[in-house]
Amino acid sequence: MSVRVDLNISLDGFATTTDQTPERPFGEDWPRLVGAYTATRTFRERVLHDTSGEGTTGVDETYARSYFAEVGAEIMGAGMFGLHNHPDDPDWRGWWGDEPPFRVPVLVLTHTPRPSLEMAGGTTFHFLSAAPREALDRAREAAGGKDVRVGGGPTVVRDFLKAGLVDQLHVAIAPILLGRGTRLWDDLRGLESGYEVTAETAESGTIHLTFRR
Amino acid sequence: MSVRVDLNISLDGFATTTDQTPERPFGEDWPRLVGAYTATRTFRERVLHDTSGEGTTGVDETYARSYFAEVGAEIMGAGMFGLHNHPDDPDWRGWWGDEPPFRVPVLVLTHTPRPSLEMAGGTTFHFLSAAPREALDRAREAAGGKDVRVGGGPTVVRDFLKAGLVDQLHVAIAPILLGRGTRLWDDLRGLESGYEVTAETAESGTIHLTFRR
Repeated sequence: MSVRVDLNISLDGFATTTDQTPERPFGEDWPRLVGAYTATRTFRERVLHDTSGEGTTGVDETYARSYFAEVGAEIMGAGMFGLHNHPDDPDWRGWWGDEPPFRVPVLVLTHTPRPSLEMAGGTTFHFLSAAPREALDRAREAAGGKDVRVGGGPTVVRDFLKAGLVDQLHVAIAPILLGRGTRLWDDLRGLESGYEVTAETAESGTIHLTFRR
Repeated sequence: MSVRVDLNISLDGFATTTDQTPERPFGEDWPRLVGAYTATRTFRERVLHDTSGEGTTGVDETYARSYFAEVGAEIMGAGMFGLHNHPDDPDWRGWWGDEPPFRVPVLVLTHTPRPSLEMAGGTTFHFLSAAPREALDRAREAAGGKDVRVGGGPTVVRDFLKAGLVDQLHVAIAPILLGRGTRLWDDLRGLESGYEVTAETAESGTIHLTFRR
Protein backbone atom coordinates (compact mmCIF):
# COMPACT_ATOMS: atom_id res chain seq x y z
CA MET A 1 0.00 0.00 0.00
CA SER A 2 1.71 3.13 -1.17
CA VAL A 3 1.06 6.82 -1.70
CA ARG A 4 1.03 7.84 -5.36
CA VAL A 5 1.00 11.00 -7.38
CA ASP A 6 0.26 11.28 -11.11
CA LEU A 7 0.50 14.71 -12.69
CA ASN A 8 0.71 16.27 -16.14
CA ILE A 9 3.24 19.06 -16.51
CA SER A 10 4.83 21.03 -19.34
CA LEU A 11 8.53 20.94 -20.16
CA ASP A 12 8.97 24.11 -18.17
CA GLY A 13 7.34 22.46 -15.17
CA PHE A 14 3.90 24.06 -15.11
CA ALA A 15 1.12 21.82 -13.81
CA THR A 16 -1.71 24.29 -14.20
CA THR A 17 -2.72 26.76 -16.82
CA THR A 18 -3.63 30.35 -16.08
CA ASP A 19 -6.43 31.19 -18.45
CA GLN A 20 -9.29 29.53 -16.56
CA THR A 21 -12.86 30.65 -17.08
CA PRO A 22 -16.10 29.14 -15.72
CA GLU A 23 -16.67 27.56 -19.15
CA ARG A 24 -13.14 26.23 -19.40
CA PRO A 25 -12.21 25.60 -15.79
CA PHE A 26 -8.68 24.49 -16.72
CA GLY A 27 -8.02 27.05 -19.45
CA GLU A 28 -7.28 26.96 -23.17
CA ASP A 29 -3.82 25.45 -22.68
CA TRP A 30 -5.24 22.51 -20.76
CA PRO A 31 -6.02 20.33 -23.81
CA ARG A 32 -2.42 20.67 -24.97
CA LEU A 33 -1.09 19.85 -21.51
CA VAL A 34 -3.18 16.72 -20.98
CA GLY A 35 -4.03 15.78 -24.58
CA ALA A 36 -1.97 12.60 -24.68
CA TYR A 37 -3.74 11.37 -21.54
CA THR A 38 -7.27 12.34 -22.58
CA ALA A 39 -6.71 10.57 -25.93
CA THR A 40 -6.19 7.19 -24.23
CA ARG A 41 -8.76 4.44 -24.30
CA THR A 42 -8.81 4.31 -20.49
CA PHE A 43 -9.52 8.03 -20.13
CA ARG A 44 -12.31 7.83 -22.69
CA GLU A 45 -13.92 4.87 -20.97
CA ARG A 46 -13.38 5.90 -17.41
CA VAL A 47 -13.84 9.67 -17.50
CA LEU A 48 -15.95 10.27 -20.61
CA HIS A 49 -17.98 7.04 -20.30
CA ASP A 50 -17.24 6.35 -23.96
CA THR A 51 -17.67 2.60 -24.47
CA SER A 52 -16.81 2.62 -28.17
CA GLY A 53 -13.37 1.18 -27.48
CA GLU A 54 -11.71 4.11 -29.24
CA GLY A 55 -8.61 5.80 -27.91
CA THR A 56 -4.85 5.30 -28.01
CA THR A 57 -3.37 2.02 -26.81
CA GLY A 58 0.37 2.72 -26.57
CA VAL A 59 2.63 3.83 -23.73
CA ASP A 60 0.28 6.64 -22.65
CA GLU A 61 -2.53 4.11 -22.30
CA THR A 62 -0.36 1.84 -20.15
CA TYR A 63 0.12 4.70 -17.71
CA ALA A 64 -3.54 5.72 -17.90
CA ARG A 65 -4.62 2.19 -17.01
CA SER A 66 -2.26 2.07 -14.07
CA TYR A 67 -3.57 5.48 -12.99
CA PHE A 68 -6.82 3.92 -11.84
CA ALA A 69 -5.51 0.52 -10.74
CA GLU A 70 -5.13 -0.27 -7.05
CA VAL A 71 -6.15 3.17 -5.82
CA GLY A 72 -8.45 2.91 -2.80
CA ALA A 73 -8.76 6.59 -1.86
CA GLU A 74 -7.88 9.95 -3.34
CA ILE A 75 -6.84 13.25 -1.80
CA MET A 76 -7.29 16.49 -3.71
CA GLY A 77 -7.16 20.21 -3.10
CA ALA A 78 -10.21 22.44 -3.09
CA GLY A 79 -9.19 23.86 -6.46
CA MET A 80 -9.12 20.46 -8.12
CA PHE A 81 -12.62 19.74 -6.87
CA GLY A 82 -13.72 23.13 -8.16
CA LEU A 83 -14.46 24.97 -4.94
CA HIS A 84 -12.37 28.01 -5.88
CA ASN A 85 -14.63 28.72 -8.82
CA HIS A 86 -17.83 28.26 -6.79
CA PRO A 87 -16.88 29.31 -3.26
CA ASP A 88 -20.34 30.48 -2.22
CA ASP A 89 -22.49 27.79 -3.78
CA PRO A 90 -23.28 25.05 -1.22
CA ASP A 91 -25.00 23.00 -3.93
CA TRP A 92 -21.97 22.92 -6.26
CA ARG A 93 -21.07 19.26 -6.78
CA GLY A 94 -17.68 19.78 -8.45
CA TRP A 95 -16.91 19.59 -12.14
CA TRP A 96 -16.31 15.87 -12.23
CA GLY A 97 -19.84 15.12 -13.45
CA ASP A 98 -22.58 13.01 -11.88
CA GLU A 99 -20.45 9.90 -12.10
CA PRO A 100 -16.86 10.95 -11.30
CA PRO A 101 -14.04 8.67 -12.48
CA PHE A 102 -12.57 8.02 -9.03
CA ARG A 103 -15.07 5.40 -7.74
CA VAL A 104 -13.47 5.55 -4.29
CA PRO A 105 -13.62 7.92 -1.32
CA VAL A 106 -12.13 11.31 -2.24
CA LEU A 107 -10.89 13.64 0.49
CA VAL A 108 -11.12 17.28 -0.56
CA LEU A 109 -8.87 19.59 1.46
CA THR A 110 -10.64 22.84 2.25
CA HIS A 111 -10.70 25.35 5.08
CA THR A 112 -14.50 25.49 4.84
CA PRO A 113 -15.72 21.91 5.14
CA ARG A 114 -19.21 20.96 3.99
CA PRO A 115 -21.30 17.76 4.15
CA SER A 116 -20.05 14.72 2.24
CA LEU A 117 -21.34 14.17 -1.30
CA GLU A 118 -22.17 10.69 -2.46
CA MET A 119 -22.01 10.47 -6.25
CA ALA A 120 -22.97 7.73 -8.70
CA GLY A 121 -20.42 5.01 -9.44
CA GLY A 122 -18.79 4.71 -6.02
CA THR A 123 -17.22 8.15 -5.55
CA THR A 124 -17.91 9.96 -2.28
CA PHE A 125 -16.40 13.39 -1.69
CA HIS A 126 -15.50 14.17 1.90
CA PHE A 127 -14.44 17.69 2.82
CA LEU A 128 -11.92 18.32 5.55
CA SER A 129 -9.43 20.85 6.82
CA ALA A 130 -6.25 18.91 7.59
CA ALA A 131 -2.47 18.96 7.25
CA PRO A 132 -0.94 16.44 4.81
CA ARG A 133 -0.08 13.79 7.40
CA GLU A 134 -3.52 13.89 9.02
CA ALA A 135 -5.27 13.82 5.64
CA LEU A 136 -3.15 10.83 4.67
CA ASP A 137 -4.10 8.95 7.84
CA ARG A 138 -7.74 9.52 7.01
CA ALA A 139 -7.23 8.45 3.40
CA ARG A 140 -5.39 5.28 4.46
CA GLU A 141 -8.33 4.28 6.65
CA ALA A 142 -10.67 4.85 3.72
CA ALA A 143 -8.49 3.02 1.20
CA GLY A 144 -9.08 -0.46 2.59
CA GLY A 145 -5.51 -1.60 2.12
CA LYS A 146 -5.15 -0.19 -1.39
CA ASP A 147 -3.02 2.74 -2.53
CA VAL A 148 -3.77 6.36 -1.78
CA ARG A 149 -3.37 8.90 -4.54
CA VAL A 150 -2.66 12.56 -3.99
CA GLY A 151 -4.42 13.84 -7.07
CA GLY A 152 -3.49 17.52 -7.17
CA GLY A 153 -3.27 20.35 -7.77
CA PRO A 154 0.45 20.97 -7.81
CA THR A 155 0.52 23.00 -4.61
CA VAL A 156 -1.12 20.17 -2.69
CA VAL A 157 1.21 17.63 -4.31
CA ARG A 158 4.23 19.73 -3.35
CA ASP A 159 3.07 19.85 0.28
CA PHE A 160 2.95 16.04 0.36
CA LEU A 161 6.30 15.69 -1.42
CA LYS A 162 7.96 18.12 0.97
CA ALA A 163 6.54 16.20 3.93
CA GLY A 164 8.17 13.04 2.52
CA LEU A 165 4.83 11.26 2.23
CA VAL A 166 4.89 10.18 -1.42
CA ASP A 167 6.16 6.73 -2.43
CA GLN A 168 5.68 7.03 -6.19
CA LEU A 169 5.56 10.19 -8.27
CA HIS A 170 4.63 9.79 -11.93
CA VAL A 171 4.85 12.90 -14.06
CA ALA A 172 3.74 12.98 -17.68
CA ILE A 173 5.73 15.78 -19.33
CA ALA A 174 4.09 17.26 -22.43
CA PRO A 175 6.66 18.57 -24.95
CA ILE A 176 5.36 22.13 -24.77
CA LEU A 177 6.42 25.31 -22.98
CA LEU A 178 3.61 27.11 -21.18
CA GLY A 179 5.65 29.92 -19.67
CA ARG A 180 3.18 30.54 -16.84
CA GLY A 181 1.05 28.78 -14.26
CA THR A 182 1.93 26.93 -11.07
CA ARG A 183 5.24 25.11 -11.12
CA LEU A 184 5.41 21.59 -9.73
CA TRP A 185 9.15 21.59 -9.01
CA ASP A 186 9.54 24.73 -6.90
CA ASP A 187 11.43 24.25 -3.63
CA LEU A 188 12.00 20.53 -4.18
CA ARG A 189 15.80 20.58 -4.37
CA GLY A 190 17.22 17.10 -3.80
CA LEU A 191 13.86 15.33 -4.05
CA GLU A 192 15.52 12.60 -6.11
CA SER A 193 17.49 11.27 -3.10
CA GLY A 194 15.78 8.19 -1.83
CA TYR A 195 14.00 7.58 -5.12
CA GLU A 196 14.89 5.62 -8.19
CA VAL A 197 14.08 7.83 -11.19
CA THR A 198 13.20 6.34 -14.58
CA ALA A 199 11.83 7.83 -17.79
CA GLU A 200 10.35 6.64 -21.05
CA THR A 201 8.92 8.46 -24.03
CA ALA A 202 5.48 7.65 -25.44
CA GLU A 203 4.49 7.63 -29.09
CA SER A 204 2.78 11.00 -28.46
CA GLY A 205 6.09 12.59 -27.43
CA THR A 206 5.03 12.67 -23.79
CA ILE A 207 7.87 11.83 -21.40
CA HIS A 208 6.73 9.62 -18.53
CA LEU A 209 8.97 10.18 -15.54
CA THR A 210 8.66 8.06 -12.40
CA PHE A 211 10.20 8.52 -8.96
CA ARG A 212 9.91 5.27 -7.00
CA ARG A 213 10.94 4.75 -3.41
CA MET B 1 24.41 24.51 -42.21
CA SER B 2 22.34 25.05 -39.10
CA VAL B 3 22.49 26.73 -35.73
CA ARG B 4 22.64 24.30 -32.82
CA VAL B 5 22.39 24.38 -29.07
CA ASP B 6 23.35 21.58 -26.68
CA LEU B 7 22.75 22.15 -22.98
CA ASN B 8 22.58 20.15 -19.76
CA ILE B 9 19.72 21.04 -17.44
CA SER B 10 18.07 19.59 -14.36
CA LEU B 11 14.49 18.33 -14.23
CA ASP B 12 13.48 21.67 -12.79
CA GLY B 13 15.09 23.44 -15.72
CA PHE B 14 18.26 24.86 -14.19
CA ALA B 15 21.22 25.07 -16.55
CA THR B 16 23.68 26.51 -14.09
CA THR B 17 24.55 25.87 -10.50
CA THR B 18 24.88 28.59 -7.91
CA ASP B 19 27.72 27.49 -5.69
CA GLN B 20 30.61 28.53 -7.91
CA THR B 21 34.03 29.23 -6.41
CA PRO B 22 37.33 29.97 -8.19
CA GLU B 23 38.39 26.38 -7.49
CA ARG B 24 35.11 24.92 -8.71
CA PRO B 25 34.00 27.38 -11.33
CA PHE B 26 30.75 25.54 -11.98
CA GLY B 27 29.92 24.61 -8.38
CA GLU B 28 29.50 21.39 -6.44
CA ASP B 29 26.25 20.49 -8.19
CA TRP B 30 27.92 20.64 -11.58
CA PRO B 31 29.23 17.04 -11.61
CA ARG B 32 25.71 15.78 -10.93
CA LEU B 33 24.24 17.96 -13.65
CA VAL B 34 26.71 16.96 -16.37
CA GLY B 35 27.95 13.61 -15.03
CA ALA B 36 26.36 11.48 -17.75
CA TYR B 37 28.06 13.63 -20.40
CA THR B 38 31.48 13.79 -18.76
CA ALA B 39 31.43 9.99 -18.37
CA THR B 40 31.26 9.44 -22.13
CA ARG B 41 34.19 8.23 -24.18
CA THR B 42 33.98 11.30 -26.43
CA PHE B 43 34.13 13.75 -23.53
CA ARG B 44 37.09 11.92 -22.03
CA GLU B 45 38.99 11.93 -25.31
CA ARG B 46 38.05 15.36 -26.52
CA VAL B 47 37.96 17.41 -23.34
CA LEU B 48 40.20 15.48 -20.94
CA HIS B 49 42.64 14.24 -23.62
CA ASP B 50 42.26 10.74 -22.17
CA THR B 51 43.24 8.32 -24.92
CA SER B 52 42.67 5.17 -22.86
CA GLY B 53 39.43 4.47 -24.71
CA GLU B 54 37.52 4.41 -21.43
CA GLY B 55 34.12 6.01 -21.01
CA THR B 56 30.50 5.10 -21.65
CA THR B 57 29.39 4.08 -25.12
CA GLY B 58 25.58 4.15 -24.96
CA VAL B 59 22.99 6.76 -25.84
CA ASP B 60 24.82 9.53 -23.95
CA GLU B 61 27.94 8.81 -26.04
CA THR B 62 25.95 9.01 -29.27
CA TYR B 63 24.90 12.55 -28.33
CA ALA B 64 28.38 13.47 -27.12
CA ARG B 65 29.88 12.39 -30.45
CA SER B 66 27.35 14.41 -32.38
CA TYR B 67 28.10 17.37 -30.09
CA PHE B 68 31.43 17.90 -31.79
CA ALA B 69 30.54 16.75 -35.29
CA GLU B 70 30.00 19.28 -38.06
CA VAL B 71 30.44 22.34 -35.86
CA GLY B 72 32.51 25.00 -37.60
CA ALA B 73 32.23 27.84 -35.10
CA GLU B 74 31.01 28.34 -31.56
CA ILE B 75 29.39 31.30 -29.80
CA MET B 76 29.54 31.59 -26.03
CA GLY B 77 28.84 34.12 -23.32
CA ALA B 78 31.53 35.81 -21.27
CA GLY B 79 30.58 33.66 -18.27
CA MET B 80 31.11 30.41 -20.13
CA PHE B 81 34.58 31.53 -21.18
CA GLY B 82 35.28 32.48 -17.57
CA LEU B 83 35.52 36.26 -17.83
CA HIS B 84 33.11 36.87 -14.96
CA ASN B 85 35.46 35.18 -12.53
CA HIS B 86 38.51 37.03 -13.83
CA PRO B 87 37.16 40.39 -15.03
CA ASP B 88 40.34 42.37 -14.38
CA ASP B 89 42.96 39.91 -15.57
CA PRO B 90 43.93 40.61 -19.20
CA ASP B 91 46.11 37.49 -19.24
CA TRP B 92 43.32 35.09 -18.21
CA ARG B 93 42.98 32.52 -20.99
CA GLY B 94 39.69 30.94 -19.88
CA TRP B 95 39.24 27.72 -17.99
CA TRP B 96 39.16 25.49 -21.04
CA GLY B 97 42.85 24.57 -20.72
CA ASP B 98 45.74 25.09 -23.12
CA GLU B 99 44.07 22.88 -25.72
CA PRO B 100 40.32 23.62 -25.57
CA PRO B 101 37.95 21.01 -26.98
CA PHE B 102 36.33 23.27 -29.59
CA ARG B 103 39.08 23.22 -32.26
CA VAL B 104 37.20 25.92 -34.20
CA PRO B 105 36.80 29.71 -33.95
CA VAL B 106 34.92 30.61 -30.75
CA LEU B 107 33.17 33.98 -30.49
CA VAL B 108 32.97 35.14 -26.88
CA LEU B 109 30.28 37.77 -26.29
CA THR B 110 31.52 40.46 -23.93
CA HIS B 111 31.02 44.18 -23.48
CA THR B 112 34.77 44.61 -22.94
CA PRO B 113 36.46 43.04 -25.98
CA ARG B 114 40.12 42.06 -25.83
CA PRO B 115 42.62 40.70 -28.39
CA SER B 116 41.95 37.28 -29.89
CA LEU B 117 43.57 34.26 -28.25
CA GLU B 118 44.95 31.48 -30.39
CA MET B 119 45.11 28.24 -28.44
CA ALA B 120 46.61 24.84 -29.23
CA GLY B 121 44.54 22.37 -31.23
CA GLY B 122 42.72 24.78 -33.52
CA THR B 123 40.65 26.85 -31.08
CA THR B 124 40.84 30.64 -31.41
CA PHE B 125 38.82 32.80 -29.04
CA HIS B 126 37.55 36.06 -30.50
CA PHE B 127 35.94 38.62 -28.19
CA LEU B 128 33.17 40.85 -29.42
CA SER B 129 30.27 42.95 -28.25
CA ALA B 130 27.35 42.06 -30.50
CA ALA B 131 23.63 41.28 -30.55
CA PRO B 132 22.65 37.66 -31.36
CA ARG B 133 21.98 38.22 -35.07
CA GLU B 134 25.22 40.08 -35.64
CA ALA B 135 27.23 37.52 -33.67
CA LEU B 136 25.62 34.76 -35.72
CA ASP B 137 26.59 36.46 -38.99
CA ARG B 138 30.18 36.61 -37.79
CA ALA B 139 30.07 32.98 -36.67
CA ARG B 140 28.63 31.83 -40.00
CA GLU B 141 31.51 33.49 -41.85
CA ALA B 142 33.95 31.73 -39.54
CA ALA B 143 32.25 28.33 -39.77
CA GLY B 144 33.23 27.62 -43.37
CA GLY B 145 29.87 26.13 -44.31
CA LYS B 146 29.60 23.97 -41.19
CA ASP B 147 27.16 24.35 -38.29
CA VAL B 148 27.33 27.08 -35.70
CA ARG B 149 26.78 26.17 -32.08
CA VAL B 150 25.53 28.54 -29.45
CA GLY B 151 27.31 26.96 -26.52
CA GLY B 152 25.91 28.79 -23.50
CA GLY B 153 25.33 29.85 -20.85
CA PRO B 154 21.57 29.64 -20.60
CA THR B 155 20.98 33.38 -20.76
CA VAL B 156 22.86 33.62 -24.05
CA VAL B 157 21.03 30.56 -25.38
CA ARG B 158 17.69 32.08 -24.43
CA ASP B 159 18.54 35.28 -26.29
CA PHE B 160 19.19 33.26 -29.45
CA LEU B 161 16.06 31.15 -28.98
CA LYS B 162 13.90 34.23 -28.47
CA ALA B 163 15.36 35.78 -31.61
CA GLY B 164 14.29 32.65 -33.53
CA LEU B 165 17.86 31.89 -34.59
CA VAL B 166 18.23 28.29 -33.40
CA ASP B 167 17.53 25.37 -35.76
CA GLN B 168 18.24 22.53 -33.35
CA LEU B 169 18.06 22.57 -29.57
CA HIS B 170 19.32 19.47 -27.76
CA VAL B 171 18.81 19.40 -24.01
CA ALA B 172 20.16 16.64 -21.81
CA ILE B 173 17.93 16.55 -18.73
CA ALA B 174 19.57 15.06 -15.65
CA PRO B 175 17.05 13.36 -13.33
CA ILE B 176 17.82 15.66 -10.41
CA LEU B 177 16.19 18.74 -8.89
CA LEU B 178 18.58 21.61 -8.23
CA GLY B 179 16.04 24.11 -6.94
CA ARG B 180 18.19 27.11 -7.83
CA GLY B 181 20.33 28.57 -10.58
CA THR B 182 19.51 30.04 -13.97
CA ARG B 183 16.49 28.54 -15.70
CA LEU B 184 16.73 27.70 -19.37
CA TRP B 185 12.99 27.77 -20.05
CA ASP B 186 12.00 31.20 -18.70
CA ASP B 187 9.95 33.34 -21.09
CA LEU B 188 9.95 30.77 -23.88
CA ARG B 189 6.21 30.10 -24.00
CA GLY B 190 5.25 28.45 -27.29
CA LEU B 191 8.85 27.74 -28.35
CA GLU B 192 7.72 24.30 -29.56
CA SER B 193 5.75 25.76 -32.49
CA GLY B 194 7.78 25.34 -35.60
CA TYR B 195 9.85 22.56 -34.11
CA GLU B 196 9.48 18.81 -34.05
CA VAL B 197 10.20 17.67 -30.49
CA THR B 198 11.52 14.20 -29.72
CA ALA B 199 12.90 12.57 -26.59
CA GLU B 200 14.77 9.44 -25.62
CA THR B 201 16.14 8.20 -22.33
CA ALA B 202 19.75 7.08 -21.95
CA GLU B 203 21.03 4.20 -19.81
CA SER B 204 22.17 6.83 -17.27
CA GLY B 205 18.62 8.09 -16.80
CA THR B 206 19.37 11.27 -18.71
CA ILE B 207 16.53 12.38 -20.97
CA HIS B 208 17.74 13.67 -24.33
CA LEU B 209 15.23 16.11 -25.71
CA THR B 210 15.61 17.56 -29.20
CA PHE B 211 13.77 20.43 -30.88
CA ARG B 212 14.36 20.28 -34.66
CA ARG B 213 13.15 22.84 -37.17
